[in-house]
Amino acid sequence: MLEMKILAIVTVTVLLFMGQSCNTKTEAKQENMKTNENELNAIFPKGEKGSEEWFTGNAYPTSLVEADSILTTVAGNVYFEPGARSNWHTHPSGQILIITDGIGYHQIEGQPIEIIKKGDVVKCPPNVRHWHGASHDVGLQQLYVIPNTEKGIVAWKEAVTDEEYSNLK
Amino acid sequence: MLEMKILAIVTVTVLLFMGQSCNTKTEAKQENMKTNENELNAIFPKGEKGSEEWFTGNAYPTSLVEADSILTTVAGNVYFEPGARSNWHTHPSGQILIITDGIGYHQIEGQPIEIIKKGDVVKCPPNVRHWHGASHDVGLQQLYVIPNTEKGIVAWKEAVTDEEYSNLK
Repeated sequence: MLEMKILAIVTVTVLLFMGQSCNTKTEAKQENMKTNENELNAIFPKGEKGSEEWFTGNAYPTSLVEADSILTTVAGNVYFEPGARSNWHTHPSGQILIITDGIGYHQIEGQPIEIIKKGDVVKCPPNVRHWHGASHDVGLQQLYVIPNTEKGIVAWKEAVTDEEYSNLK
Repeated sequence: MLEMKILAIVTVTVLLFMGQSCNTKTEAKQENMKTNENELNAIFPKGEKGSEEWFTGNAYPTSLVEADSILTTVAGNVYFEPGARSNWHTHPSGQILIITDGIGYHQIEGQPIEIIKKGDVVKCPPNVRHWHGASHDVGLQQLYVIPNTEKGIVAWKEAVTDEEYSNLK
């Protein structure tokens, strides 16, 4: 009987140990998933929150290449938290957007909102009103390139309303 | 005595189980480290291996924006495996490199090799000979932007020798 008792105690101990081990692994996995969902791959410093004059929500623009007379090109990154977007705006020479992570929206005035995601490249023609930003639920990391800056860089317009932002078709 | 025997057997079993569990975790960790070192964050499709006419080693160029008369800008990505690099070359309007992952080298003729890494942005002036590629041990993911393509895009020159490539100061 004593042997049976010892065996029972040790068996319970082993089962508890195995259970503990499994729980730890599950928690670690869930923690990873949470991190992956909330933190996109940040290539550049996050920097300061962009002005409410030009952005709705939490957007973090970072300049990477300043305008000069040789390359006549500016480039930078914007990290948009979910729900954040630029105002409507135009570029005298157009713009290239390169999406490095996350999911977002881009709309050229008069066209439906297009969904943009990691690896996508979109172009906006000169002097055309557009806006871009994150999707409702997932943030967006996007590079922008503005060519031929001798003609100007950007002309800011009014904010994108919640109705415009949510007008997905 | 029988109890002692059972206790000894079960203790050894528990220790073996714990040992097995620890080994599994260590192997998983080492596997992750290996993956992280070998696979950089790939934002764009890897595509075809670049021609030996223009690259030494395994380089994978992917065009993202083709030249047009409106944006007059080309953009693309190159993934360089460790040791791979471009030939010497020039751009009539210069070039911007944006490093999205890994570690590499960039050299403008007559200047020392500069080490470039994730988050770095480097500019090369018009009509200046330069080359860029991965470091010896770590690959490189890099975006390139070439402005004012009405003046041309690239003029390829001779390969970077092993001696030039290894001339780090």
